[in-house]
Amino acid sequence: MTDTLAPSPISCDLDFERDGARHGFLRLPWSRDDSAWGAVMIPICVIRNGDGPTALLTGGNHGDEYEGPIALYDLAATLDPARISGRIIILPTMNAPAFRAGTRTSPIDGGNLNRSFPGRPDGTPTQKIADYVTRHLLPLADCVLDFHSGGKTLDFLPLAACHILPDKALEARCRAAVEAFGAPYALQMVEMDAVGMFDTTAEAMGKTFVTTELGGAGTASPHSIAVAKRGVRGFLAQAGILTGDEAPSDPAAGPTTWLDMPDGDCFLVSEEEGLIEPLVTLGDAVARGDVVARIHPFGRTGRAPLPCHARRSGIVMARHVPGLVKPGDCIAVFAVPVP
Amino acid sequence: MTDTLAPSPISCDLDFERDGARHGFLRLPWSRDDSAWGAVMIPICVIRNGDGPTALLTGGNHGDEYEGPIALYDLAATLDPARISGRIIILPTMNAPAFRAGTRTSPIDGGNLNRSFPGRPDGTPTQKIADYVTRHLLPLADCVLDFHSGGKTLDFLPLAACHILPDKALEARCRAAVEAFGAPYALQMVEMDAVGMFDTTAEAMGKTFVTTELGGAGTASPHSIAVAKRGVRGFLAQAGILTGDEAPSDPAAGPTTWLDMPDGDCFLVSEEEGLIEPLVTLGDAVARGDVVARIHPFGRTGRAPLPCHARRSGIVMARHVPGLVKPGDCIAVFAVPVP
Amino acid sequence: MTDTLAPSPISCDLDFERDGARHGFLRLPWSRDDSAWGAVMIPICVIRNGDGPTALLTGGNHGDEYEGPIALYDLAATLDPARISGRIIILPTMNAPAFRAGTRTSPIDGGNLNRSFPGRPDGTPTQKIADYVTRHLLPLADCVLDFHSGGKTLDFLPLAACHILPDKALEARCRAAVEAFGAPYALQMVEMDAVGMFDTTAEAMGKTFVTTELGGAGTASPHSIAVAKRGVRGFLAQAGILTGDEAPSDPAAGPTTWLDMPDGDCFLVSEEEGLIEPLVTLGDAVARGDVVARIHPFGRTGRAPLPCHARRSGIVMARHVPGLVKPGDCIAVFAVPVP
Amino acid sequence: MTDTLAPSPISCDLDFERDGARHGFLRLPWSRDDSAWGAVMIPICVIRNGDGPTALLTGGNHGDEYEGPIALYDLAATLDPARISGRIIILPTMNAPAFRAGTRTSPIDGGNLNRSFPGRPDGTPTQKIADYVTRHLLPLADCVLDFHSGGKTLDFLPLAACHILPDKALEARCRAAVEAFGAPYALQMVEMDAVGMFDTTAEAMGKTFVTTELGGAGTASPHSIAVAKRGVRGFLAQAGILTGDEAPSDPAAGPTTWLDMPDGDCFLVSEEEGLIEPLVTLGDAVARGDVVARIHPFGRTGRAPLPCHARRSGIVMARHVPGLVKPGDCIAVFAVPVP
Amino acid sequence: MTDTLAPSPISCDLDFERDGARHGFLRLPWSRDDSAWGAVMIPICVIRNGDGPTALLTGGNHGDEYEGPIALYDLAATLDPARISGRIIILPTMNAPAFRAGTRTSPIDGGNLNRSFPGRPDGTPTQKIADYVTRHLLPLADCVLDFHSGGKTLDFLPLAACHILPDKALEARCRAAVEAFGAPYALQMVEMDAVGMFDTTAEAMGKTFVTTELGGAGTASPHSIAVAKRGVRGFLAQAGILTGDEAPSDPAAGPTTWLDMPDGDCFLVSEEEGLIEPLVTLGDAVARGDVVARIHPFGRTGRAPLPCHARRSGIVMARHVPGLVKPGDCIAVFAVPVP
Amino acid sequence: MTDTLAPSPISCDLDFERDGARHGFLRLPWSRDDSAWGAVMIPICVIRNGDGPTALLTGGNHGDEYEGPIALYDLAATLDPARISGRIIILPTMNAPAFRAGTRTSPIDGGNLNRSFPGRPDGTPTQKIADYVTRHLLPLADCVLDFHSGGKTLDFLPLAACHILPDKALEARCRAAVEAFGAPYALQMVEMDAVGMFDTTAEAMGKTFVTTELGGAGTASPHSIAVAKRGVRGFLAQAGILTGDEAPSDPAAGPTTWLDMPDGDCFLVSEEEGLIEPLVTLGDAVARGDVVARIHPFGRTGRAPLPCHARRSGIVMARHVPGLVKPGDCIAVFAVPVP
Repeated sequence: MTDTLAPSPISCDLDFERDGARHGFLRLPWSRDDSAWGAVMIPICVIRNGDGPTALLTGGNHGDEYEGPIALYDLAATLDPARISGRIIILPTMNAPAFRAGTRTSPIDGGNLNRSFPGRPDGTPTQKIADYVTRHLLPLADCVLDFHSGGKTLDFLPLAACHILPDKALEARCRAAVEAFGAPYALQMVEMDAVGMFDTTAEAMGKTFVTTELGGAGTASPHSIAVAKRGVRGFLAQAGILTGDEAPSDPAAGPTTWLDMPDGDCFLVSEEEGLIEPLVTLGDAVARGDVVARIHPFGRTGRAPLPCHARRSGIVMARHVPGLVKPGDCIAVFAVPVP
Repeated sequence: MTDTLAPSPISCDLDFERDGARHGFLRLPWSRDDSAWGAVMIPICVIRNGDGPTALLTGGNHGDEYEGPIALYDLAATLDPARISGRIIILPTMNAPAFRAGTRTSPIDGGNLNRSFPGRPDGTPTQKIADYVTRHLLPLADCVLDFHSGGKTLDFLPLAACHILPDKALEARCRAAVEAFGAPYALQMVEMDAVGMFDTTAEAMGKTFVTTELGGAGTASPHSIAVAKRGVRGFLAQAGILTGDEAPSDPAAGPTTWLDMPDGDCFLVSEEEGLIEPLVTLGDAVARGDVVARIHPFGRTGRAPLPCHARRSGIVMARHVPGLVKPGDCIAVFAVPVP
Repeated sequence: MTDTLAPSPISCDLDFERDGARHGFLRLPWSRDDSAWGAVMIPICVIRNGDGPTALLTGGNHGDEYEGPIALYDLAATLDPARISGRIIILPTMNAPAFRAGTRTSPIDGGNLNRSFPGRPDGTPTQKIADYVTRHLLPLADCVLDFHSGGKTLDFLPLAACHILPDKALEARCRAAVEAFGAPYALQMVEMDAVGMFDTTAEAMGKTFVTTELGGAGTASPHSIAVAKRGVRGFLAQAGILTGDEAPSDPAAGPTTWLDMPDGDCFLVSEEEGLIEPLVTLGDAVARGDVVARIHPFGRTGRAPLPCHARRSGIVMARHVPGLVKPGDCIAVFAVPVP
Repeated sequence: MTDTLAPSPISCDLDFERDGARHGFLRLPWSRDDSAWGAVMIPICVIRNGDGPTALLTGGNHGDEYEGPIALYDLAATLDPARISGRIIILPTMNAPAFRAGTRTSPIDGGNLNRSFPGRPDGTPTQKIADYVTRHLLPLADCVLDFHSGGKTLDFLPLAACHILPDKALEARCRAAVEAFGAPYALQMVEMDAVGMFDTTAEAMGKTFVTTELGGAGTASPHSIAVAKRGVRGFLAQAGILTGDEAPSDPAAGPTTWLDMPDGDCFLVSEEEGLIEPLVTLGDAVARGDVVARIHPFGRTGRAPLPCHARRSGIVMARHVPGLVKPGDCIAVFAVPVP
Repeated sequence: MTDTLAPSPISCDLDFERDGARHGFLRLPWSRDDSAWGAVMIPICVIRNGDGPTALLTGGNHGDEYEGPIALYDLAATLDPARISGRIIILPTMNAPAFRAGTRTSPIDGGNLNRSFPGRPDGTPTQKIADYVTRHLLPLADCVLDFHSGGKTLDFLPLAACHILPDKALEARCRAAVEAFGAPYALQMVEMDAVGMFDTTAEAMGKTFVTTELGGAGTASPHSIAVAKRGVRGFLAQAGILTGDEAPSDPAAGPTTWLDMPDGDCFLVSEEEGLIEPLVTLGDAVARGDVVARIHPFGRTGRAPLPCHARRSGIVMARHVPGLVKPGDCIAVFAVPVP
Repeated sequence: MTDTLAPSPISCDLDFERDGARHGFLRLPWSRDDSAWGAVMIPICVIRNGDGPTALLTGGNHGDEYEGPIALYDLAATLDPARISGRIIILPTMNAPAFRAGTRTSPIDGGNLNRSFPGRPDGTPTQKIADYVTRHLLPLADCVLDFHSGGKTLDFLPLAACHILPDKALEARCRAAVEAFGAPYALQMVEMDAVGMFDTTAEAMGKTFVTTELGGAGTASPHSIAVAKRGVRGFLAQAGILTGDEAPSDPAAGPTTWLDMPDGDCFLVSEEEGLIEPLVTLGDAVARGDVVARIHPFGRTGRAPLPCHARRSGIVMARHVPGLVKPGDCIAVFAVPVP
């Protein structure tokens, strides 16, 4: 991020300054065995109308999370530029190779985009994407909405989230934007391992930043999609970009429940391998010590399953999806509703 | 199935005739690069008490379907032989290599076990399993319960099912067993492509046969597991094997809704590739012509999504799980409740 | 091909009997890990106008040969049904999975479609395609044009070909159709290893059959595409299906040179591994004993290359494409112009 | 093996009838993505001098067993035809693709050649090799020596072996040939799973057949190679083919110990996964019930290892090589010295 | 390239200072699963005779480009040291692992050698090769000839090239060397993305540097090989190393046409996926706006192909080879002949 | 190793300061496609009793070396804390992913742990393990014993080793610890390529460091395991940690022979590919120039094997295991007994 960095190899053929809606690509040169002078093409849309703030809307940070891409492809195809004041930059599938493969990380280089920020212009393709977003798109933005869900291996209560930040004015703006998103649940948290995250990079540049976890299991439902579609419009309205009829007139489907994750005991991690039998599911309340899952050793029949105990009281905010569990897998995440 | 077939290479060290509960393996020799004289070990449990009918209970026919294995490992570990009259043979993970890999088909040979019956003693490992079940276990059984769910790519309303059969007495026994299973939904159907199915093979031998679809998405929920656990005990009770306190005293959590699949228009198949946005979900009622999903072409932004229309009225019995859809994928299955 | 075969699992939603142009799919059910109830979708086009003969036009028998698919996608999109008398059935990518992967054989099952005829309804996907073509499409056809090129590893002089057949009347019809195709070169041959070929299956059913080798190296050129496009129209005109303005008015770009392959010495096979230096190329005349290539052993520098001698005189009809050669690779094929 | 079989697609350019030593290939056509008209080349050597019996010597039946290929490449390169009476056909790497990959089975088709006999001319490449050997080489042979070792996953006491056969005259000839081979150990056995073996096919044709297990662990030692080299010359001398100075003058390095495998308890199979700690090694004597290995569960420290008990008394004839063990792996084979 | 770099782990057993021709290896230690203390062996040849300049000749920078390796293996095997004055260092397969795999990039680490300069002694194997060349071979050289072609996915008009450089004296020397190479075409260019290139590294050290593009499609032809062989001798003669009879007496087969690439519109990049139908080929003249290719969507028949328009006038200097095209692939490169 | 490094992402739930034996995990977060919030779990054991020195005992630095893991799992499960004074930290499978895969390097990232020190907290998983060991475990330790063997591709005489170090007092302590280990052979050496080694990192921190090579071939024998078990107790006793009955009372099974490796000619490296015939084995004495192995070219029969000559006199300390050899493979290592 210093001026000693090489220029980004990524180019974009869109004019970010003209009014109207334009659809194009970030073109990332990627020389490889099956295309000597090939490139990764990342769809991008810019919608602008007059002066006003700029929002950067991103989906597909992880490639197996779908509410964001659905809401953003839909928005890009349908939003009338006349309804906005300012500018919207949409990257529905930020880690495009991961999205096309349906995988969390990039099949090209194994990169987890949300651990690759601020990126490098001379690094892997995933790092180059992060670098371009950091140096070319974030500076244009006032606020950022980055869509996440649980992907193929986790499932979440639908929530929007922001971080506890040293800059309290920024923190307040982020919290207001989460409120405007209007998901059934909201979360304010300290990130324990923030190295390489898009969030951290954007917040360090003073951008209002909202992230989400809207479901998971590698799929999307009519309900979770509705949360995403309503949320992006609420976010844009709160930012002063979306106005009039396009802005959601009602405060979402219902009130938002704020959650808290007080400590590391919120995470329940498996130390065993086996067939997992969940005893609770999303939204269920548990007390410390409850058996929340049992792990059946599958080597042979007749062995007793191993009980997994909740390490704290709370409600089930996230759960393990696959039928089998491995040592180190996250079995569940518990959170505490804020009164 | 004629006496010209070679003997099965599979051996089993359990005594099927003694009273009590025993846990062992089907041992399938499998010579390979990483184990010259290796074998596939398939867990099996036999529980016997005195005279009475024999039930064969199978899970893991497809390796990514979990309600069956959970209910059957649990049953094998906890059922007191004194509570039964007769014999229960349990194969919780019939296609053990697929189960351990978490995949529908076998990672060893690509075999879909439920398209491999009646099997071959000199075929692939998957065919050898089918052959052993056909020639060594089915002849011992009076009734068969084979657990299925939607696996990683489909999700189902929880249902038990039987077939419309030429032998009406057998059909009636199967239907009674489905009733006894007591799932929220039940289905009686004509199988369109019955070649190679376990069902067909067992029915042709005159066995009472029940199959299920209890959920899917590559996971299991407390609710779907409860349906499975209650169902297996109802099935065993109806067969006269499970008696007394172990038998479920109530007719399941609620009444069973019978479904019908009148014709091939029940299946909605994609002809396009893209990002799928479902507009309806399991249990929703649809009318012929309704747009039930939209497919967003993801090559670039700004293109209109392609609508997918229901080809008949009914309720959504099954749905596509992954966020991306490919040509030929099953988007949804519609069924008609039987009044 | 006896009535004891099971029905094909492949379905087709097109009406083969109505006038007009219709575009649809052969739908081949293919249950697999990433799509439990998925299918292979093979594009098919039927164009009909009144009575007349039926031509079956096929490309993508091998998935890395491109003149056929290009000419056939083009024909399907542009041919006015009013210009024909009879019926044209077009399968531009017969082995669709191989075509989409850009490989000779199917990535699904490794199948070489042109060694899989007449196929099996209960076999691999590739065998199922062959079976459907054999039992459902060939019976509708009077004449068949199956496009081939050299694929990624061979390159050919552009030629159309037919076989020396026991049925001399059929042989004459085939030869006339080759003439009508009007490629720069033509070949009449005895197939040495005809087991499993589409050609053999069609000829045994009495169908006029033309095959081609129009180039190769995994690409297509404006010239080879022109030969294909002109050829298919000449073939259809000679069959009496294409009439009037659509039929080619001139006898191709030039006269056709007939070739002969008298014996097995036409094939030059490598017994060594190394870096190949070709000394002759397509169309060059060679004499028996000429050094036509040298193989450089690449383990170290300073070793003499191994000479490869022509085993007979002729012209170079086909050549090895990759820069490296392995034992068993075909280095070149020589043919003798027929005076 | 009936006259309805198609001809083998394999060709051989050697003259089996002329005197002298000739080196060439079995050429097995193998059309594939990286060589459209490619072939598998299997080295073969024929050495003939006048009249006399024919010996077929084979190595590389499994691709990761090395004493045979070393002894046979050496023999082919050094044996003076003048020293023999009759004919020797040498296939040092019968399953050539497996040998080049260093794997037990073929990387082309997964085929275990020694479970593929008598083979099929229209099957997989491995089946085609078996078919060619069965129909074209075995009929030429009077006696067969097929080299095996334990491969990468087993290790054996050096032994030659023959079978207990219904034809007692043949059995006696085989036993005499084993004696002539002169390995430190010898074994006469009933094969429990003889389907598909080269041995069975050759014996059924009345050929004197000797097989070996000369070591293993994916390597060869000076000692095991010496056993192989001495053995092949002893075998040829006993067959009357090798005479004079080339025949071994001494009865091997020492006397041969005959072993017996009385029943299935000779095999010790693992039911667990873990880190294996062997307590005995090749040649050690054990008593029924002895702990011969311990399996450390490696999920975590502090757990007691699982003891593996010998199921019968005897000496360790074979042992598991890899440091990890999986369910179904053969931990050890015990045999009983014949007094 | 500073003295703080670790020493290269690569060793070379050749004496670069003695007269005569010597053949050996660069030995790059590469510890890996299949060879704990293994190494990559890169063939190298040094030919020296008395005093004079040193030329470094390299092929196989990309592993699927063949004119360079053929010309350099041939030169290394045949050049009489007595015919030269000075020294020639030949690396015919600089990225040896890529060359042996027939791939552009290294199968070991995915490295594109021509994007890995100046390399790192503690990096990937590909970076270690670059580092050794940069720190141990380039300092010995006065001039460098690095052979390229289009590889498996591009095809080029045969050309030699040099760069527009800030050091005009060096630029003039490079241009003279290109002239001496005597290819049918020549190109002087500004490299847009020069980071990591061998060219840039060598030029920065003041070395006369010539690169080529001599064909492609993963093959070599007698004509392109002749250009390479003639070119290397012309280059060595112009450098004053090759003298007398060995130097080419004639100015190549014909005059060289100089080309220019004025701007980024020379590159035509695909934004779509499909079956590509090229309408022009190498050497054809096009005008801005011409349709130079059409892309057939292959999902179904009956759709119109998408036209690809030239963005500038010129001749076709390079073209896409594979029959299928992906978004981001380079369809064609246009250049303008310099009058 | 400076305070500018980020904190390690690895956590450990064990208390290193309490008396007693505790078993737990190093938990390394590893977000990936099949576990979004997953982790690598590395078993660790801490045994403490009162004051005294700390020993760090590590196995599985390379994942296919087994004497260390066996001895250390055994020690962790059986050692009575009351028998020690001080503390023992045991990591039986330091590179746990490699150990579970049975491979030298990590299947996650390809990392060779013993070339990854001192590691990076923000690097690959393998680098993160090295970093944690360097910054969190090494500072706790007074002495380190790191078990190695030859892995799947090399086999060694059983030996313990230390380095010639600039700090002669440390060197003496290391040498004394090697003596205490009491293996049949011992080696004092200069490491030629010490970059990234655990040894170097620990020695630079002033830790007494002993490494071993106890066998190999991807297996362990009762003898090599006995050397490891006796060695670790000798090492702990010499360090003053293990006392009384647990300490070995006898100086191993016999005297230790010290070896020396005077120069690079100790390593014999293959320049050819082929089937290797070893003529000498571990412990054999050879003289300079002896043929110690022959490489049979396996392309065809009848070619003479290539002899491999010893470049110096000595005894065979290590040998190549696989039956095939590739250019760059280490054929043998020779050492000289120190009188």
